[in-house]
Amino acid sequence: MARWEPNAVERLRDAALELYLDPGYEKVTVAEIAARAGVTRRTFFRYFPDKREVLFFGTDRVEALVTQGVLAASDGTSALEVVAAALAPIAELSDEDPAWAAVVRKRNTIIQGNRELRERELGKHASLASAIASALERRGVAARAAKLAADAGLAAFKAGFDQWIDDAKQRKMGKHIREAMRDLGAIVDGSVTLKKLRRE
Amino acid sequence: MARWEPNAVERLRDAALELYLDPGYEKVTVAEIAARAGVTRRTFFRYFPDKREVLFFGTDRVEALVTQGVLAASDGTSALEVVAAALAPIAELSDEDPAWAAVVRKRNTIIQGNRELRERELGKHASLASAIASALERRGVAARAAKLAADAGLAAFKAGFDQWIDDAKQRKMGKHIREAMRDLGAIVDGSVTLKKLRRE
Repeated sequence: MARWEPNAVERLRDAALELYLDPGYEKVTVAEIAARAGVTRRTFFRYFPDKREVLFFGTDRVEALVTQGVLAASDGTSALEVVAAALAPIAELSDEDPAWAAVVRKRNTIIQGNRELRERELGKHASLASAIASALERRGVAARAAKLAADAGLAAFKAGFDQWIDDAKQRKMGKHIREAMRDLGAIVDGSVTLKKLRRE
Repeated sequence: MARWEPNAVERLRDAALELYLDPGYEKVTVAEIAARAGVTRRTFFRYFPDKREVLFFGTDRVEALVTQGVLAASDGTSALEVVAAALAPIAELSDEDPAWAAVVRKRNTIIQGNRELRERELGKHASLASAIASALERRGVAARAAKLAADAGLAAFKAGFDQWIDDAKQRKMGKHIREAMRDLGAIVDGSVTLKKLRRE
């Protein structure tokens, strides 16, 4: 085994994704992931605290980038538009790089298949929402409105993301998210209304 | 020990809340909770699958009530208003019953102090959001808009709840939630805007 292990993180991540899909997240050990990536168990633990966190690698960096986006936005811009603009680069990564989009889709399949992983992902989203809200507060938005703008922006992001995952026509994630943002406008202005109950 | 154990669920819940506050959630065993409630360990497990779920007791009932609220709402009502109206009884429970409000506050303190519990709570909220979205879909709202209306309504609920928790003046939860709903309107119509970055 070479001491210098080029792209160890990427190889570990890719090995983990393959093994978490088959034979499955619960069945795989760190030793098996490391072996498939051609590194030692020790190398795995140099980069990731546990099996679960491989799937959330890079979350801190995303949080920092989105926060910077909010802090760098122009005065007078709508808080919700700022959140949408700060989140947009996440969709662009997938829309501009099919290999990355494939990683994102695999990762999502794995997370949706396990309750513990789903809850951890919800925790990461909550942490991202708090980071966005703090950045908005630094830009003079009141605490409750800041939290709500972060939550509403992330809800639109997630609604768009989910549609992108399910989209048989493979349209871009950014497009789905922009549509979800428009939906949000229609929901809040009251133009989305209930119809007669359909009996099933 | 009597075979008939009146109010066993309430006593177990109250015993768990006290012990999770002191000495703390991580330190307490099911046997200790049962002993304090004056029931057997077996009785505990008749009502709760584990230590964690004591804190989420009644969630299924809340989900059913909120869903019924959506299904029973009038045709033509705004989807977001319907979600707000369906969630309102949760706030009323605390606003009309100080003893229940105290339970809710204790529960919140315990959950916020433990990552695993916070993630489980996020999972319960996500499940509630899905149930609301399904009910809205049955009322003719498109899938993405239904999910977004549920998420946005719950975000306003949570923003109001958080302010209620922190409110030194002890104003009602329902009032905080209605204010958060108004905030949501101002966020989405773009009237909440960014100010110059305050250097800290």
